[in-house]
Amino acid sequence: MPKPERHVFICVNQRPAGHPMGCCSERGAVSVWQKFADLLNQKQAFGKIMVSGVRSCLGPCQFGPVVVVYPDAVWYGKVRPEDVEEIFDSHLVGGKPVERLFVPPEVFG
Amino acid sequence: MPKPERHVFICVNQRPAGHPMGCCSERGAVSVWQKFADLLNQKQAFGKIMVSGVRSCLGPCQFGPVVVVYPDAVWYGKVRPEDVEEIFDSHLVGGKPVERLFVPPEVFG
Repeated sequence: MPKPERHVFICVNQRPAGHPMGCCSERGAVSVWQKFADLLNQKQAFGKIMVSGVRSCLGPCQFGPVVVVYPDAVWYGKVRPEDVEEIFDSHLVGGKPVERLFVPPEVFG
Repeated sequence: MPKPERHVFICVNQRPAGHPMGCCSERGAVSVWQKFADLLNQKQAFGKIMVSGVRSCLGPCQFGPVVVVYPDAVWYGKVRPEDVEEIFDSHLVGGKPVERLFVPPEVFG
């Protein structure tokens, strides 16, 4: 296996139903993960791109589903399945991050 | 929350008992994850370092437990709990990767 050029991590942390913080899974993260995996397959991007589901909380839960792309260290928030192809084509393949989906910079302030 | 300077991902994928490929969990990955989390807490490195468990296979299973550090894109293999403090201090804090624990480069050839 080659090292991936870009590695995308989708938070699929699960908290119990009714937990006050909620979780990315409750906000639709598993469908987002599935969409990334489907596109990886459809576009035959294995070896160039890797898609991983993360079991533990990545932090800015209120912006879930949270998606992080390395080595760029770009953090996306409130990602919906219908946003995934744009991230895939523009950023993962094309190298141009999708600014409209960034977690707001003040979250990291 | 600040963006982490280094983000360590530990494969904690689980396959059913007896699966011919085995899995990182079977090879001790959960203890490795726990050790990173304990050190993060002991050394109060929150905000600088993030520790995440990955649910899906990262690839070179025969070198599990597999640990990947970004943004450096350094892949460690056969990591034991007693190796974790060296990775933590030398690489995550100090910026100097621990070469003796690298997944062999020919795996990525």
